[in-house]
Amino acid sequence: MRKKGIAASKGYAIGHVVIKEDSEVKIVETIIADIEAEKGRLKEAVINSKEQLEKIKEKAEKDLGAEKAAVFESHMMLLEDPEFTGAVEMNIESSKINAEKALMDVVSMYMGIFASMEDEYMRERAADVKDVGNRILANLTGNIGAGLDNLNENTIIVAHDLTPSDTAQLDKNKVIGFLTNIGGRTSHSAIMARTLEIPAVVGLKDITKCIKNGDLVILDGEEGIAIINPDETLISEYKQKKEVYEKEKEELKKLINIETVTKSGKRIEVCGNIGKAEDIHQVLENGGDGVGLFRTEFLYMDREEMPTEEEQFESYKYVAEKSNPKPIVIRTLDIGGDKKLPYLPLPEEMNPFLGYRAIRLCLDKKDIFKIQLRALLRASAYGNIKIMFPMISSLEEFLAAKEVLSECMEELKEEGKEFNKDLEVGMMVEIPAAAICADELAKYVDFFSIGTNDLIQYTLAADRMNEKVSYLYKPNHPAVLRLIKMTIDAAHKEGKWCGMCGEVAGDESMIPILVEYGLDEFSMSATSILKAKQIIMNN
Amino acid sequence: MRKKGIAASKGYAIGHVVIKEDSEVKIVETIIADIEAEKGRLKEAVINSKEQLEKIKEKAEKDLGAEKAAVFESHMMLLEDPEFTGAVEMNIESSKINAEKALMDVVSMYMGIFASMEDEYMRERAADVKDVGNRILANLTGNIGAGLDNLNENTIIVAHDLTPSDTAQLDKNKVIGFLTNIGGRTSHSAIMARTLEIPAVVGLKDITKCIKNGDLVILDGEEGIAIINPDETLISEYKQKKEVYEKEKEELKKLINIETVTKSGKRIEVCGNIGKAEDIHQVLENGGDGVGLFRTEFLYMDREEMPTEEEQFESYKYVAEKSNPKPIVIRTLDIGGDKKLPYLPLPEEMNPFLGYRAIRLCLDKKDIFKIQLRALLRASAYGNIKIMFPMISSLEEFLAAKEVLSECMEELKEEGKEFNKDLEVGMMVEIPAAAICADELAKYVDFFSIGTNDLIQYTLAADRMNEKVSYLYKPNHPAVLRLIKMTIDAAHKEGKWCGMCGEVAGDESMIPILVEYGLDEFSMSATSILKAKQIIMNN
Repeated sequence: MRKKGIAASKGYAIGHVVIKEDSEVKIVETIIADIEAEKGRLKEAVINSKEQLEKIKEKAEKDLGAEKAAVFESHMMLLEDPEFTGAVEMNIESSKINAEKALMDVVSMYMGIFASMEDEYMRERAADVKDVGNRILANLTGNIGAGLDNLNENTIIVAHDLTPSDTAQLDKNKVIGFLTNIGGRTSHSAIMARTLEIPAVVGLKDITKCIKNGDLVILDGEEGIAIINPDETLISEYKQKKEVYEKEKEELKKLINIETVTKSGKRIEVCGNIGKAEDIHQVLENGGDGVGLFRTEFLYMDREEMPTEEEQFESYKYVAEKSNPKPIVIRTLDIGGDKKLPYLPLPEEMNPFLGYRAIRLCLDKKDIFKIQLRALLRASAYGNIKIMFPMISSLEEFLAAKEVLSECMEELKEEGKEFNKDLEVGMMVEIPAAAICADELAKYVDFFSIGTNDLIQYTLAADRMNEKVSYLYKPNHPAVLRLIKMTIDAAHKEGKWCGMCGEVAGDESMIPILVEYGLDEFSMSATSILKAKQIIMNN
Repeated sequence: MRKKGIAASKGYAIGHVVIKEDSEVKIVETIIADIEAEKGRLKEAVINSKEQLEKIKEKAEKDLGAEKAAVFESHMMLLEDPEFTGAVEMNIESSKINAEKALMDVVSMYMGIFASMEDEYMRERAADVKDVGNRILANLTGNIGAGLDNLNENTIIVAHDLTPSDTAQLDKNKVIGFLTNIGGRTSHSAIMARTLEIPAVVGLKDITKCIKNGDLVILDGEEGIAIINPDETLISEYKQKKEVYEKEKEELKKLINIETVTKSGKRIEVCGNIGKAEDIHQVLENGGDGVGLFRTEFLYMDREEMPTEEEQFESYKYVAEKSNPKPIVIRTLDIGGDKKLPYLPLPEEMNPFLGYRAIRLCLDKKDIFKIQLRALLRASAYGNIKIMFPMISSLEEFLAAKEVLSECMEELKEEGKEFNKDLEVGMMVEIPAAAICADELAKYVDFFSIGTNDLIQYTLAADRMNEKVSYLYKPNHPAVLRLIKMTIDAAHKEGKWCGMCGEVAGDESMIPILVEYGLDEFSMSATSILKAKQIIMNN
């Protein structure tokens, strides 16, 4: 039988199925006599959960990179949130019920609250609460690690869905792919699969019902297909596809230390996007020419308070040193919109994507902005750091941001602190107005980096997260292509360079067009770098 | 004393103050014995309220036009809503309390629900509930029409705020202006003042506390200033300003039947925007060359169900006949975003302005779309109707919409129903992509009309309703000007005409630039037409 789903992570796998049962434990409410003992059981389960999560997080940081591992920090935060555990304790006390039932009541309530929120980011938190709740529950019932331990080699996991902790724990030596009922290309599990470089097909609807443990299955991560108990012909056909695919992957590895030069002889920089300092390693291992986008939001997220100048300095310095002399483009704080900080209350907005975010917020809250700029400047003494401002819509804004930077430079000079006073300062081109006026802006910036995700969304007035209009979100819409071309031409006319750090930069069908347009730098997720290098060299 | 507020409606007034006391009646809860009698009191108050509203609505339709009077339809609907009055009755029954208290409980609850909603449009409904609640209460207590009756001539009303019903009832023979503590340029009262052509200053914060009944006050609706008990010099200075202003208004009236021709000899069409069929009269009375934008949403709003083809046909036919041979550009349904319909459930969206609305919705729900197109086509037999599609982002969408129109034409032909088969079909240019690709689109459309409100918002990625970023919303941003110029040039290159129906078309400082760019048609609120004609003729 052949099932079609959504291709979530590339590659082929042929292996035997292990179904991950949804550990839907039936929780029975029991009246308890010894309230203190019950609270003690809860406490122990929470402590054990924390220890497990700590280990999962360490493993995830190693396998998946710090950015992707950050989800476990939110899990830890929830475990440590006295409001959450306190609510469970109170429920035990007031209702005199067992910890299991008390826990699941609170989890349901939390999930209900998060799930009903307008905000996409907050809605996703519902899944985190469920994940954490299930972990504590498993520790209470002793039903830990159901299904994903003691696997044989060549196992393909089949599940309704995989939580971030499930995915992070997959042993790449045993698990060669996974199939799930739900999820899309941008769901947590899909992103993790791509980072782990494990092929995966998601959104298969009822795959858990069509398959049984031990079945042989072909997983086609290119076409998004699962073939259950295939015949010999199909098996050998897919074995060959797999071989070709893996050979190509080997071929790509040879490009790691090769400079990327187009057929017409132009040297192109192929860089990586990172979210946390430690992610620099994955970029360098994949042959990246540096970092084209360091999204500094992650330094601010999943914390109780603003990171200090010193903390930020250490992060930026780490990347600068590890990458030196390769360049690191660091984008200043792009918070607001769908990204919120627990310690920085922002107004509720009807259209957050058209609202108070990024440079708008930083120019309004200069104290926050200056802490980051000082940290960036100080780190620039240790490597090739370039600063990039997000969401610039006019020359005035860019100059205002540079003015704040100059203030910071003056301060540091007076304090006798070192920095690279010639560091490059550029901007994202992600608002249509910036692309349309790129000729003017190019006179003042050191470089542009085109942020296609937002640029497309604003140019077409279509929120790409909104299923009802995502069909309009087309990177190759003629208007988008024209704005990209205008931006590149404008930069070159003033002798500046132009990069791209949106998803389009890693889109295999778009790369030839971008080479043709004269794009100087491509920045993408680390695992896409080698393929991009290959395509550029053939164009 | 001089107080600075927000200039809400132009002109000058010098007169004596009448303070409209907020009829904050203290509601005392009393336990009642005869529940049926109390319910009878409520019923009577509701009936009286309805009669009063009916009269106010009629007056408003005459003085303010049908679009602005529509707010009273929502008030009537609330009065007729069995859920609302039923809730009050139930409260009387279950709590055995007086109708006054039972009513205000329900009003508070409703206001709380509306006020907490994300949606701007729904939040505004809170003010409607308050207005209706106060009217029923006044009828219960017999405290009707507090303050605005029996006024002397040359009265300037001072109030905390004016509700739509307050404003609609103002007697223009007596009331020469008003001042309020709260409100902004786009608040209900400000819009109503401009339509009534009464000068007004709003947002004066504590004007009700700085002034007393009978005080002489100068109202400067140009600068947004109120001068309390001014000296003789000021009075004569303002008398002169007022005279100059009124003379200019008289001068403008002479332009009503004059063709608008620029200094270089180009004939320009200056048209009006309308929301309801009856509003055509105000446009014609103000010398409009036709209608540049008929917003058909209002036919769909404040109703319990979709308007039928026949109902729509009657509306469109009415305008077409009254206006004939002057043209009427009718925009197809632009619902979604911040505009909702009670009988058409739409998904909750994180960024409604980047979401499922206008042509996107119509192409998805062709049954709804076809009803409107059939009505429009049938009405085209009675006058100079042109059809305009909103929110077009690509050629595919425009062609898809035209395809549906062709289907309707075929159907009508088969049914033997008349229509103008050569009617012009154009599109709004309000998404950056449409302006950027205007050269391609111009080959297929009969005309463009630039919708500046949305165009600016998307081009600058700034929601103009959002106070935190409204400073970015600049009609004269170079990127916006370039897109406008590109669109006009593209239309002319293909021999098509280009109009503008956003707020910029009536912006006195922008009109000379638009004339310079070669804009062929300007469409604005009826009361701005004469001033625009004058400016165009001087450019």
